[in-house]
Order: sequence, then C-alpha cells, then structure tokens
Amino acid sequence: MPRNSIITLTSDFGLQDHFVGTMKGVMVSINPDLAFVDITHSVQPFDVFDAALSLAQAYSYFPSGTVHLVIVDPGVGTARRPIVASTEKYHFVAPDNGVLSLVYEREERLSVRSISAEHYFLQPLSNTFHGRDIFSPIAAYLSKGVDPARMGGEVTDFVRFAAPRPKSAGNGNLRGVVLKVDRFGNLITNITARDAPGLFRTDPPPFKISVGRREVTAIRSAYAEGAAGEVFAIIGSMGFLEIAANRGAASKLVEATKGMDVMLLLEDAAGRRPESLPGD
Amino acid sequence: MPRNSIITLTSDFGLQDHFVGTMKGVMVSINPDLAFVDITHSVQPFDVFDAALSLAQAYSYFPSGTVHLVIVDPGVGTARRPIVASTEKYHFVAPDNGVLSLVYEREERLSVRSISAEHYFLQPLSNTFHGRDIFSPIAAYLSKGVDPARMGGEVTDFVRFAAPRPKSAGNGNLRGVVLKVDRFGNLITNITARDAPGLFRTDPPPFKISVGRREVTAIRSAYAEGAAGEVFAIIGSMGFLEIAANRGAASKLVEATKGMDVMLLLEDAAGRRPESLPGD
Amino acid sequence: MPRNSIITLTSDFGLQDHFVGTMKGVMVSINPDLAFVDITHSVQPFDVFDAALSLAQAYSYFPSGTVHLVIVDPGVGTARRPIVASTEKYHFVAPDNGVLSLVYEREERLSVRSISAEHYFLQPLSNTFHGRDIFSPIAAYLSKGVDPARMGGEVTDFVRFAAPRPKSAGNGNLRGVVLKVDRFGNLITNITARDAPGLFRTDPPPFKISVGRREVTAIRSAYAEGAAGEVFAIIGSMGFLEIAANRGAASKLVEATKGMDVMLLLEDAAGRRPESLPGD
Repeated sequence: MPRNSIITLTSDFGLQDHFVGTMKGVMVSINPDLAFVDITHSVQPFDVFDAALSLAQAYSYFPSGTVHLVIVDPGVGTARRPIVASTEKYHFVAPDNGVLSLVYEREERLSVRSISAEHYFLQPLSNTFHGRDIFSPIAAYLSKGVDPARMGGEVTDFVRFAAPRPKSAGNGNLRGVVLKVDRFGNLITNITARDAPGLFRTDPPPFKISVGRREVTAIRSAYAEGAAGEVFAIIGSMGFLEIAANRGAASKLVEATKGMDVMLLLEDAAGRRPESLPGD
Repeated sequence: MPRNSIITLTSDFGLQDHFVGTMKGVMVSINPDLAFVDITHSVQPFDVFDAALSLAQAYSYFPSGTVHLVIVDPGVGTARRPIVASTEKYHFVAPDNGVLSLVYEREERLSVRSISAEHYFLQPLSNTFHGRDIFSPIAAYLSKGVDPARMGGEVTDFVRFAAPRPKSAGNGNLRGVVLKVDRFGNLITNITARDAPGLFRTDPPPFKISVGRREVTAIRSAYAEGAAGEVFAIIGSMGFLEIAANRGAASKLVEATKGMDVMLLLEDAAGRRPESLPGD
Repeated sequence: MPRNSIITLTSDFGLQDHFVGTMKGVMVSINPDLAFVDITHSVQPFDVFDAALSLAQAYSYFPSGTVHLVIVDPGVGTARRPIVASTEKYHFVAPDNGVLSLVYEREERLSVRSISAEHYFLQPLSNTFHGRDIFSPIAAYLSKGVDPARMGGEVTDFVRFAAPRPKSAGNGNLRGVVLKVDRFGNLITNITARDAPGLFRTDPPPFKISVGRREVTAIRSAYAEGAAGEVFAIIGSMGFLEIAANRGAASKLVEATKGMDVMLLLEDAAGRRPESLPGD
C-alpha cells in the first residue's frame, strides 16, 4: 500500500466558490492520509469533452493507485448513473455522461461499474451537489482500498462518445478542428502526427494550414524558433498539431477559437503545391 | 492525534500573487506534518460577509481537529484583534471583524480568545500582512496542538453581525436578497426552506419570484429538469433557495447580481394567486 | 530527513489547463512522500521578471530542504540550459533565463549547475513541455535527496539580470518604477526604505510622489488609516514602497499600471518643498 493515496480532481467548479474545498473536506474526513492534486477546475461549465481532454492529457502521469475524480455533471439529480471505471493502475470516478470517453479510448482493460451502494453516500443526499454527496465519498473509499465490486454491478452500456477525428478532404488533405485554446493562446487541433506523417518529417513538403484569418506555412520544432509575429505549426506535448506563436498568442493573431475548422493542405502526389481548397 | 493536521484557508488574496504560497511556507515551517485545503481565495476583496458565507458552506465537512484560517482583513495594522474561536471540533483563526459571524450563529458552544501572545508571531511584524506574520503562525501552532488558552484571554465582545434574513412583506410574502452568484450563474438567495415551507411541498401552491428582469414561477428539484432557457427556483446544496437555469447562467438570463432584492409572492390564505406586489 | 519533502511551484502555466496537474503527477510518481505548495501559476506569460519577483517574496519563508521549482520558459526546446541552484537551505530548479536573478542577488553562497544527466528526464522528451519532462523529474529527485552534483557540472556563466533600481533624479529625488500591481490594486514600486530613508521617519518631511494621474503626498502605516478615496504611500510587506488606497484599488484611482514611472520628490536640503520635477 502506498503511504499517501492520491486523488486527482478535474471539474468545472471553478475556484471562486466553496465547492472544491468542501469536497476535499468530505474526502479527508473519510481518508485522512490522502493527498490531492488538482488537474483543473476551469473546465468550461457543462463541457464534458473539455473535461475529457484535460483528464486525458494528465492521468497517465500519476502513480499506480491514484483515484481520478472527474465532475462535470449537468445531469446532477437525474437518473444518470455515478460510475467507477477501473484499470490495472487507476480508478476513475465520474458521472456516466461520456466524460471518461478518452479514457475508454486509451485503456484496453477496463471495468465499469454503476455505483449503487448508497451507504457510502453522504446523508442527507442533495439533488444539486453529488460531487460532495456521492462522488467524493466514493473516491475517498476507493483511495482507502475499498473494492469497487462492493459499490455496484458491472455495466457495459456506459455512455461514450468518439473523439472528433480529422476528416479526409481529398488528396491527402485533412479537415480538423481546434479542440482547445490553451493559456498561452496555442490552438490545440485534433490532428496528430499519425494523421499527417509527411508534415513531421525532417524535410516536410510544402503545406498550408488554414485557420481563422491566417494561412500557416511554416512548421517549427520549438516555440522559440518562430520569428516575431510569425504563426507556425508545431507538435505539442500531447502529440497534437498546434498553431502557435513565439511569445505571443496565436489565438489572437489568427482570430481563432475553440471549435473552428482547421484545413491542412499537403502537397499532392503529383507534387503540386497546395494552392487552394478543393472546390474553392 | 491525527497523523496529518489540516488547515483550511479562506481569503480574498487571490492566486495571482505570492500571498497564499508565502503563508503556507510559514505554516509548514512550524508544522511540517500539516496538509492544506483551500476553500477559496477568491472572496471579493474586503468583503467580510462573502468570506463568512464560503466558510459557512464548507467548514462542517472537515474532520475534527481541522484549523480553519480565514483572512479578509481590511483593518490589518490597526487595533482590530486577531482571534481564535474554538468549538469541540475546530479552531477558527481570523481577524475580529465579523468574518466568523455565521460560525457563531451555527455553533452552540464556542470560546473566543483575543490573541496577544506575540512570541508566536513572525518577527519583524509587518503592518500590512498579518496573514503571514500573525494568523499563519497561530494557525500552525494550533495545528500542532498548542492550547489556545496560551495565546490570549477569552473575550465576549467579539464583532458579529446578523446574516441578512428574509423579511415578511405581508400575506406570507417574503423579501429576500441575492447573497451570491456562483460559478454557474446560479443566484443564491437568503431564503431557506424553513422560511417558505409551502414552496417546497411535493405539490406547491402557485408562487411568483421577482428578481432582476424576470418573474419565476417554476420550481425544479434538479437543474437538468429545467427546459431550455427556462429560469426556475431550486433548493441548493446548502438549503438556500436558488434561481437557476439548466446548462445556463440564470444571472445573465435575469440580469441579476449579488445584493439584489428577491421578492417571493405566495398564494395567499384565501387562495388568491400572487398577481402583484403589495403596493404595485 | 524531513518526513514530507516540499516542492513549491511558480509558473506562468495558469490553472485552466492540465499543465500543473500533470507536473505534480510526474513528481509524485518519483517521490510519493512529497507535498506541493503553489506560490503562483499566474505569472504573466513569458515574463521572467514577474516570476522572479513572486519567488523572491516567498521562498525564504519555507523550511530548509524545500525545492523551489520555477518555470517561465519561453526558450523551451532550444539550447537554453536547465539549471539547479543550491544554497545551504534550498534547491531552485529553473531554466537558465534569469528567472532566479533575485535569488542570486539575495543569496551569498550559491552553487549553480547545468543539468545534463538525461537519465533523470522523462522519455520521450518533448520539445514543448520541459516543465513535465525535465524540470519536474529533476525537482522530484532533488526532493528525494539526490545530490545535484550527479545532475550536471557547476557553471558560473548563468544568466542573470539586475533588478531595476530607482535612479537618482537630483536633489535626493528618485525615479522608480511600478514593479507589479497586486490583487488589491496596490502599486508595488522598486523603491525601498533604504532608498528613501527620510520618507519613513516618524515625522517625514514633505514629499510628493507622481504616478499615473495623481500626486501622492500622504504616507500611512496601515491601509485602514487612509481616508475614503485617498491615495497614499505605504511600506509593504516586502519592504517596497507601495501606492495604495483603503478598501480600494489605487491602480484604478491613479490609472497606473505595471512598468509606469514613479517619481519621488523629497524636500531638498535647503528645506524647499517639492513643487515640481527638475526641468518641468
């Protein structure tokens, strides 16, 4: 048994209210030996995919035995189920609304249970704050080593959605999307090196990325390699293609936001340079 | 003795400066075994009641032995006293400016001491950051088990204010106030189920709540039960009547902010529907 | 050996992304017994001096053995070196870009090493997130007691800049600068009591401070001593002259921001009152 159990927290609760502190109080009352790590509480309110993305980028860096608590729960108080998903290394505690979809995508062996053992819940049970009354105590008992099998039966019909994948736009071109704008204004797209292997060769062919008001034709391997004011492509720390700038916010320079289309035009098989979009 | 002592922090210091980190450094230098839980540092600057409210919603969820440190201290450097208020389960460390008023209201047995034992303070003592120089070391020594009686004499003239209570507006109608707007845009009022028991029956009589630019006539038991764009009443997780919307910010929909009046009109004894405010 | 090792974190990563949580996951995987204290993650993006300032105000309050991790790293992925600077009490882990300059200024005995022992790094090593792949593991191994001598050779040509010092403007007058605006709107200048000892006597001579749109002629020893709407000078908790207001934001009242000039005019030797700037 590890000396300190770790519970990570990912939520849309923000830090301006008492919500997160209250949940930690509940958990530390059940397991005084645990340590918390906040992944983020700034998930866009009610945005299940945004939470899924933050969790996916962080969870695998934690030690075996970590409990990942994820609460973006627009359906609180309704029939949506609380679940615990367990892998060989981790437990994930969340509402069954798809917020664990990227975990399901990445983890091969996974057992998902619908939590029904109400004696673990806080009483009286509210209809509006299951983070406090259901999810926190469940996470804390898991961190103490309680077997998830004691919390509810296994289910296979849990909610999951497919992460948005870039789509072929003909001639090896790709139509992707901005998944997220990070703190620095980098635009995180859903295009990976695997989707566009040519782009990440040592000597890539000419390409053009259309996003927001700009066409990007340069690729850099470090942010600091960009010239002043230049907007360029780069492979970010999670393997996604990013649109970035050196000491500047690409999001402002290209006037792009989350959800916007990203069109990647690669030199075609005939060696023609990517001049325009098909159908332009 | 618990293995890890817990100190919670509630302040208006924000997270953009070094203030909170510095205080934790002071505390962990005195008691290396303690663990911190932030309740919030986003209390409105100088807003003693806002801090009182966040603390009141969170403190009772912590284990026995927790020290609750609360610093909203516009009077720092003046004669206002540092105090420690002790109940059977907790110590509360704060400036004597009323920030513990809701604790005084909720706790029956309470001993309040004026902290005068300067040998616990950091030296040199600043006039501008008693959070670091007085309150943090006091909290840390309490977490190590130092008896508060060694810190100063008991006082009974501590500053307290009454939480704003809804007022009768005739015919069982109530005039309340928006105490707070939370992260999701829910308007937390000062009206409780006890103030308006009829409203929270299984089959409530017709009612009308005027707040901001809207009249609210529906009550829901879960956020997700609201229709798209609907603004409704709900009992929140701390027992207060909230004005809310499903996956939306009621504060924007009704254009209401903290401090605004909330008028609750109930069907009167004669069964007449609440058409208008008295005097309209 | 202390029971819990402490790592503090200072960065420009913000809290809305997964960055900080991921780094903590890396560290706690290496050293399960450590505790984290965030100093701030709200350093202005890429602003090395802003980080240096926050760190300088906090680090000395931590217990011996603390590892201070500081990441503002616009040069990530380039040849800028990762370094560890060690004093008798602390290790500082940072990119070699001057972010430790104020530590170098304050600490007399200091050994700085260029980190080259790649077997401590996370693999695969990204070009865009050395906070996760290099700095976090190094900090964690230091917290476990690994000797920094095993991480790389000593260097003396580390990057350092001089903190901006107030300049003489003749007649004992000083031209300083606003280093920072804190959460409360206080303007932190680079003028210390040592720079203007006359100002901080019990009975200071007449003076005038020009900043933004205001001339400040009052000095107070506590924020609460200011009259309503008054803007005054005060010595802040780190020894810097601040321009402040009682329960108000001086930054708004004087319309001043970070980087603005602050002109301090003292009564001259001949006892003439400070009417105007030289050359006005």
